[in-house]
Parts: sequence; C-alpha cells; structure tokens
Amino acid sequence: MSKAYELANHLEKLNINNMYNNDFYWTWDKTDDEIDAIFTVADALRDLRERNKSCRVWDSGLAISVFRDNSTRTRFSFASACNLLGLTVNDLDEKKSQIAHGETVRETANMVSFMADVIGIRDDMFIGEGHKYQKTFMDAVDEGFHDGVLEQRPTLVNLQCDVDHPTQSMSDFDHIIHHFGGVENLKGKKIVMSWAYSPSYGKPLSVPQGVVGLFTRFGMDVVLAHPEGYEIMSDVEEIAKNNVAKGGGTFTKTNNMAEAFEGADIVYPKSWAPFAAMEKRTKLYQAGDVDGINALEKELLKQNAEHKDWACTEELMKRTKDGKALYMHCLPADITGLSCKEGEVDRSVFERYIDPLYLEASYKPYIIAAMILTSKVKDPANCLRKLDAGGARKLF
Amino acid sequence: MSKAYELANHLEKLNINNMYNNDFYWTWDKTDDEIDAIFTVADALRDLRERNKSCRVWDSGLAISVFRDNSTRTRFSFASACNLLGLTVNDLDEKKSQIAHGETVRETANMVSFMADVIGIRDDMFIGEGHKYQKTFMDAVDEGFHDGVLEQRPTLVNLQCDVDHPTQSMSDFDHIIHHFGGVENLKGKKIVMSWAYSPSYGKPLSVPQGVVGLFTRFGMDVVLAHPEGYEIMSDVEEIAKNNVAKGGGTFTKTNNMAEAFEGADIVYPKSWAPFAAMEKRTKLYQAGDVDGINALEKELLKQNAEHKDWACTEELMKRTKDGKALYMHCLPADITGLSCKEGEVDRSVFERYIDPLYLEASYKPYIIAAMILTSKVKDPANCLRKLDAGGARKLF
Amino acid sequence: MSKAYELANHLEKLNINNMYNNDFYWTWDKTDDEIDAIFTVADALRDLRERNKSCRVWDSGLAISVFRDNSTRTRFSFASACNLLGLTVNDLDEKKSQIAHGETVRETANMVSFMADVIGIRDDMFIGEGHKYQKTFMDAVDEGFHDGVLEQRPTLVNLQCDVDHPTQSMSDFDHIIHHFGGVENLKGKKIVMSWAYSPSYGKPLSVPQGVVGLFTRFGMDVVLAHPEGYEIMSDVEEIAKNNVAKGGGTFTKTNNMAEAFEGADIVYPKSWAPFAAMEKRTKLYQAGDVDGINALEKELLKQNAEHKDWACTEELMKRTKDGKALYMHCLPADITGLSCKEGEVDRSVFERYIDPLYLEASYKPYIIAAMILTSKVKDPANCLRKLDAGGARKLF
Repeated sequence: MSKAYELANHLEKLNINNMYNNDFYWTWDKTDDEIDAIFTVADALRDLRERNKSCRVWDSGLAISVFRDNSTRTRFSFASACNLLGLTVNDLDEKKSQIAHGETVRETANMVSFMADVIGIRDDMFIGEGHKYQKTFMDAVDEGFHDGVLEQRPTLVNLQCDVDHPTQSMSDFDHIIHHFGGVENLKGKKIVMSWAYSPSYGKPLSVPQGVVGLFTRFGMDVVLAHPEGYEIMSDVEEIAKNNVAKGGGTFTKTNNMAEAFEGADIVYPKSWAPFAAMEKRTKLYQAGDVDGINALEKELLKQNAEHKDWACTEELMKRTKDGKALYMHCLPADITGLSCKEGEVDRSVFERYIDPLYLEASYKPYIIAAMILTSKVKDPANCLRKLDAGGARKLF
Repeated sequence: MSKAYELANHLEKLNINNMYNNDFYWTWDKTDDEIDAIFTVADALRDLRERNKSCRVWDSGLAISVFRDNSTRTRFSFASACNLLGLTVNDLDEKKSQIAHGETVRETANMVSFMADVIGIRDDMFIGEGHKYQKTFMDAVDEGFHDGVLEQRPTLVNLQCDVDHPTQSMSDFDHIIHHFGGVENLKGKKIVMSWAYSPSYGKPLSVPQGVVGLFTRFGMDVVLAHPEGYEIMSDVEEIAKNNVAKGGGTFTKTNNMAEAFEGADIVYPKSWAPFAAMEKRTKLYQAGDVDGINALEKELLKQNAEHKDWACTEELMKRTKDGKALYMHCLPADITGLSCKEGEVDRSVFERYIDPLYLEASYKPYIIAAMILTSKVKDPANCLRKLDAGGARKLF
Repeated sequence: MSKAYELANHLEKLNINNMYNNDFYWTWDKTDDEIDAIFTVADALRDLRERNKSCRVWDSGLAISVFRDNSTRTRFSFASACNLLGLTVNDLDEKKSQIAHGETVRETANMVSFMADVIGIRDDMFIGEGHKYQKTFMDAVDEGFHDGVLEQRPTLVNLQCDVDHPTQSMSDFDHIIHHFGGVENLKGKKIVMSWAYSPSYGKPLSVPQGVVGLFTRFGMDVVLAHPEGYEIMSDVEEIAKNNVAKGGGTFTKTNNMAEAFEGADIVYPKSWAPFAAMEKRTKLYQAGDVDGINALEKELLKQNAEHKDWACTEELMKRTKDGKALYMHCLPADITGLSCKEGEVDRSVFERYIDPLYLEASYKPYIIAAMILTSKVKDPANCLRKLDAGGARKLF
C-alpha cells in the first residue's frame, strides 16, 4: 500500500465535513481534525507527486490571486499548488485594472470571480485592514453566488493577512513534524519564537502570530520572546493560552532572548513591528498624513536600533539544546554581513541551516494544495485513492 | 434532453458557415443567424459549465491578449472564457517587450502568434486608431499564415475598439433576453442609451455605439439621448437606422434626458466623450502637441460640467415604466456620493440594481467563449452535443 | 509513414543519452548527434502540430522563466513551446518579488523551483555575468534536488546569455536547413556574419557569437566581418576554429564588409557592442560609477557613428551570389528610413525579405520545445511515436 493510500485511510477517520466549501482564514478557526487533515493531504500529495501521479482535481479551472504586497515564495507556492491540481492562476494586478477608478471591493470581487474555483489573497500591510479586505471580498462572492452571478462559490486561501499567515505557519509546522519524525515527538519540545533586530521596519506581525497561534496546539513549550514594546496582538495571545489549556504544553513570554534560547529545541528569530505602532501607521495612512508616516518611520527605526543585540548569533545558539537547536525562518532573512550590516542572524548560523531552511519552505505548495483540495472536494480520502490509482503527471 | 442539447438543435438550423475561421470586429458585420448563434452557444456553455461538464475544445492551445488600455472585467472574462475552452492566455505587455525599439505592428503580430489559436485586442483610446490597429494586426497574421510562418490562422475577438465593444453589447443584450424571458418579449420595449455626467473625460464611445448598433436589430424602441455636442459616430447611427428599417422598432434621438426616460423599460445612462473632440485629441497626440492635449482636456472637463444635470437620479427613475425600468451599466460607474461627488447615477439607484448589474457582467465570459468557439470549430452544434455527453470539469 | 515517425527513426540512431536531465547552455557543449537531435525533434514536433496531434509530454507541470532583459519573440516562443508540451509558464518578475530585499540567487532559485520542470533564463546584459547567473541558478537547484527540497531537478534552457544565444542560432540554422533543402546542401556555402551600424549601442554579442559558434560545424565558409575594435569573445573564435578543423569548411575574419559580401550565399548583418567596452561597462556598473557609464555610452555611440557605412544596402546586396543572398536577422532590425534614420539595413532590402525573416523566427518555439523534450524525456524517439499515434490537440 502506498503512503498516499495509507494517508487516505487516516484521513477517513477525521471529522472534516465542515471543510467542504469553507474558507481558510486562520488556523485557530479550524478543529484539530481539520488541521490534521491539511497535514495529511499535504503529505499525500507530496507522495503522489514524487511517484509521478497526476494530482489533477480539475480538467480546467481558475484560481485568482490578489497580492497587495510583494511576494516571491508564496506567489510561486500558490502557482505550484494550483498547477498541481489543474488550476490556472490569474493574478489581479491592481495597477493594470480600473480599480483606481473608485471600484469597490465588492464589485471587483465579483468581476474577477465569474469562473473562479479558488481565491488566494495576501494583504498584510496594514493592521486592522488585511483580514477585513479578505472578509469583504469573500462576503461579496458569497452574495454573488447566491444571486446567480457566479456559477459556483470560490473558496479562500489566506496567503497572509494582518492577523495570521496560515500557509507559512503550517509549512513551518509540517517541517518540524518531519524533522522530528512525527507530531508525537514534538510533545514537550521547546520552541522559541523570538523577535530579532532588522534594519528595515514594519515587517508584518502575522508570522509570529501565526506560529504562536498554531504551535501551541501540540503540547510543546512555546516561548514568545521580544523586547518591551514589541507585543503581538493580544487576541492571538489569548488563543495561545487557550490552546495550551486544552492541549497541554506551555506558553510563556519573556523580554530576554538569551534566557529564551536556553535549552531550546527550535528557535525562530525574526523581526516584526510593534503592534501599537502599526495600528498608528494604519491611521496615518488613512488620514493621508505623510509627515506623520515619515516621523513614525524614523521613530521605529530608532526604536529597532536600540535592540541590535536581539540577533541569532553563534554565541546565542550555543545556549540551545546541545548547541544544535533547529533554526527556522520564513525567508528572506536579514543576514548580518551578507544582506545587511547588522541583522536577524549571523551569517555562519544561517548558512549552516540552509538545507533545513529550504526544506521548511518546500512544504508550502503542498500545504496550499491541501487547503484547496479539502475545501473544494467533498470526499478527499476517496479523491486521494483515485489519484493514487490514476494516471501519470509526466507522460513520457 | 439537456438545455445545452436543445440549444445545439436550435444552432443546427442557423446558417453560420461563414463564422468558421472568421474574426469578430463589429456586431453589424454579422448576420442575424450569426448573432443568434453567439447567444445560443453562450447559453449552452453556461448550462454545460453549471452541470460540471468539461467545455474543453482544446487539449492545449494559446490565446494572445493585447490590452492597450486598462481592463479588469474584460481581462478576467477573456481569461475565464479561454480557460473554459482549454486555452492558455499569454498577454502581450508592451512594456516588457522590445516594441519600443520601433517594431511594426506587422512584425509583432507574427512574432507573438506562432502558436496562437485566438487573439483578443482592446484598443479603444483613440478615435480612428483602435479598429485600424486590430485590422493591421489581423492582416499580418493572415499573411503570416499564408506564408507558412504560422501553422494556423488565429481569429480575433475585438475586446473593445474605438467603434464597437461587441463583447460588452452582446453581454448586455444577453442579460435583457434573460431578464425579460426571451428575445421575443423585447419587441416594442423602450430602451434609452443616455449620456450621463462624469467628472472624468474621454470615456470611449464604443459602449453607446455598440448598444445602438446591436439593440436596434430586435424590434425595440431605441432612444439615444445626449446633450448637444456629444454625438456618436454618424456611421453607427446609419447602422441603427438600417437595422430598424429591416427589423422593425424605432431609433430616435433626443437632447432631453427626462423626456427620454419617460415610460422606458430599460435605461443605460453612461458618460462618453464627444466624437469630434476625440478626433481632435487623436490628431494632437499624433502631433505630440502636449499643450494642445492639456488645453483640450480642460475644455472638455468644462463642457462636461455644464451637463451635471444629466444624471440617473431617483427623480428621473420615477419617470420610467412604473418607476422600475431596468438600470444597466457596463461598470465601473461613477456613482454620486460614493466614487465621486457628482456622477452618472445616484448611489441609491445604483445600489438597488447591484444584483442585475453583476448578472449583466456575468454573461461576458460566455459571450467571449461563444465567439471563440464559433470561429474555431467547424461544427459547433456537434461540438456542444459531444461536450454534453463528455466528461466532468471538476473531477472529484 | 508520417514525417514525425520517420524523424523518430532517425533520432533513434543518434547517441543522445547524455541529453537526459542535462542543461542547454551553449551549442558547443553539445555533440553533433545532440545538435542533430534538436533539429530532428523540432521538425517532428512541427509536423505533429501541423497535423493537429497533441504534443503534451505533461498532464500538468511548470516552467519558470526569468527575463532579466526585455523580450517579445523569445518570451512568446518559450510560452508557445511550453504550452505545446503541456507546461504552464510562471514568470519570475523581479520587480514583484522580494529579491530587492537582498535575497541571494541560490535562495531565489530554490524558492521558485519547488515544482519546476524547466527553467528558461535570459541574462544577456553584462559581459561576464549572464552565464554566471545561469550557472549559479542551476547549481542551486541541483543542490536543492539532492537535498530533497525539490522533488525533481529542473533543466535549463538558455534563452540568451552574454556568451551564446542557442535558441536563436539554432532557429536561424534550422531556417537555412529548410531554405536550402537539407543540411547536406549547406556544405561550401558562404555565410557572412557581419557587424552593422545601429544608432543604439550595447547590443549583446551573443547573437554573432552564437552564429559563429554553431554555423562553423557544418562545412560552410563562415566569414566574420566587423570594423576594428568590434571583436567578439576570443573563446568563441577558438570554438569556431576547432569546429572547421574537425568538420571542414572555413572560418575567416575581415574588417571589410563589401569584401565579405562578395559572392555570399547568406548574409546576417547585425549590430553589436565591442567586447572590451562591454567588459568595461560591467565593471562600471559593479562600481556604481554613473559618470563612467555615461561617458562610456557617449564614447561608444561616437565610435559606432564612425561606421555608418557598415549597412546592408541594395548596393552591397548586389555583390552577393547572383545579388540574391539570403538575408537573415534575429529581429527587431534597425531599418534605415523606417525605425531609424540610419541603421543596419536598407528598408527595401528588409522588406523584400520579410517572409523568410518571419519564417526564420517561426522555428524558435519548436527549437525550444525540442531542447525541453530531449532534456526531460528519457526516450524521445518512443515519445514522438506515441504522440504520432496519439490524440488530437484541437478536439473539435
């Protein structure tokens, strides 16, 4: 029996009926079974792909992507996932459209979705706005479907909003499942999600929030470390607390990076912006206050610069479990002495972990494909078995 | 018998041999049977799609799009239509090409068409230029095909030129066919194509021209209303006159919007630029006369502003049949109090008609697909029957 | 027996095992059998396509394109080739990505290649850089594959580097094979690769280098003509000398265009930049020396202008064999009196040869497809036979 077939058998035991025709906004919207299903389908698709099995769920079909912020790996991961399943991606490039003419999100959402099976949206720039945009978009297509405008109701894959970055956090977690030989081996492991210094400012909070909101579900000891003033959304901290209350493990916070690294099995040092400052920035942009924006940028860069000692150095890595914690990053990293003078991580540390870092990223296309498949296919277990018994992807 | 199958039977009775391998420039190039065929195939494809039938006409194939003006809905409609039929769209982005190096249209046309099945072009900006560009392009691929450069002769879908916007006018008309329960119910209905005020200037004339040139074929009372000085191309008015002479109904013109709305069944209030001014603008651009262009813009904005009372207000809507005429627009509209201070339509009117407006737009992918299918498939009726009996689009 | 089937039989006799899973950088990396295989597969695919046979090698799959310089014909040729074989192209647009954030080539290469079957790269701007970029990219995906990051190892098609432009030179050569009725008829034919004046500067050397490096393999008399100071890379001249030593024919150089044209069967007059100046330019760019770059540009334009008599005039064409040499160009050409005041070729000469020029370009999609097929399919002869016996591309 193939690995994909075994995974299909596991999938069948999960209660995932609610995934069908549903959107993927945040991991904490999903039950444990649903999260399990994503990892299971992702692994099955990877196995099928590696055995040259066609994974087409569609003979023809469209996916719409909306990238309101730059992207390389998520863009290509989404494109890869869609191609794997038989969908063609059409990107809504707001510069090429008439959106500047004052079109509402509601109208745009319907106009681009006439034949859309799936919608992928990245909107992570402004606190309080990204998720709202995705919700408005999906409410509009919902209405469009019910009014007969759209012949089907496309489903959403959140490709990063201001709150969560589920395709990232789930790829990250899939990586450690495989690295440690199974999710059961993660119980009691210490993972540090730590702030780190970067010469740029305003990096999204959705990565640390996504990690904290997901990794606390699996009985791990999750430590969130950052300087004072770099708090994440309190809502997500509440999620994390609830998660450990239900599933075991711990969730602790500290303002001391060195302390956090002590005995850690996994470290994830990464820069982000302070939540309060990002809220302020959103308001400044809404008010069109250019002077205010510039002043805030200066202030934030200055504030960042006070914490240059928050870097993943060789020194610090020695404090981790046997000096060999698994180093993680969503990439691209700000690498001291390579991409910047002083950054998030020592060059020698980064380069020692290049293989696992790229491997970490390689799960994303499969995670996205799994999110699409579970939301669009009524019986995913049956689908995987059929694909397993089906034709080749590369025909010669 | 499925709806698609019934429509295939109807299609078979039409004389459409001349559509095969032919281009779609203007609706008035086409016979009544040919126009009927487009609506028939569009409806059949929608039925097949809604029943999850694969509508692939190609196993692999290319469509080339050339958007010389911005586009959201037409771009996505074209992409959707192509995907439906199994074609991949490649966009000729003139910024990314070497066209700036002085390449001729003839050369570009051949260089991008080596394996093109279909060409979609939008070129609506300059009076006297848009259609000419499309014609030059298609003459070039014609020659390329006959010289063995191209292995087949791609066909054109006019995605809007300076004269007609057939994918728009036919979607609009398909919408009213369905809204009024059949083309036979449209006889004697009063439709008003009216100019309306917009704070921007230079909007294409191809929408009102397309509507006037098509809607006059079906026995309706078509009224063209605009302030003095906003005349459309006289050639198109001649077409309209000939249409009513042959098919019944009336074609009248007025400079009074309120009068036009009286007892109307359908209203289509939309801004456009005066034809004479657009001709002048083309010449100024050709001469590179920047001062002249700026002066003309000011003059036109001033002229527009003299007609702010040409707006589709609640007041005016009351004059229509039972106060409930069907409101139409090609979108995006300039909505008073939403997208601009004063515009084409009251916000409350626009919002009351959002469902039918989106529905109106939803026909475009199917109309485009029908134009492609009838020009590339020798026996469309047989093709529809085979698709009806064929496999699924979404496989699981 | 079909032409494609006959070509498959010929293919089987060639020793091409080494092509499988291998990259295509330069034609001179390839054996005579391998070069023969590309032409054979290209012709077979053209025959299959013209007989409406599906040429899909993939049920689904991805090709990544990286255009670090503008492109129309190569971009569309690559897109056409990929579509023909069943691959979807995803373009890495460096402006839309996070590459500006300091990402290394190694990282980008892996991040965009998770599911890539094929990589096409154009990087021709800087001497000493283009090939290096391609090599670095492919070394990275090689490593990524061996580390399990990529589920397969994509192969490269060089879409133009600073050294060679193999998809161009092979299309050019395929064109003359067909024009003269077979490669055996080219023995002893005189072909002139000549520099020509252009009002722009800095055109890549890879076209003349590609022609000289390839055309010298087939027993032809290859003449390289250019003004003093416009030498090409000496490495490529060495390749050319070795080629004629092995395969017969001659390779000569001259600084006299008129002399070169004397009795020529084929002429290929085209502008390029002096190698030494381009090396200097690369260093100026690396040093960020804007003044130096501007000074060099002026100097080169002045140097070019000293050689305005290097143009393919009617006068000069009369000196060729019967006054009727085949005129070649990679397009777009700088045409005197059409695209510029004084350029590479007289308008009347250019226009007389438009049909063969477009035909020359039309081979490129098939050459690219052949490069992809031979590098990704283990048994290309068997594959062609299966395609020959297989289904239709256009289904109705």
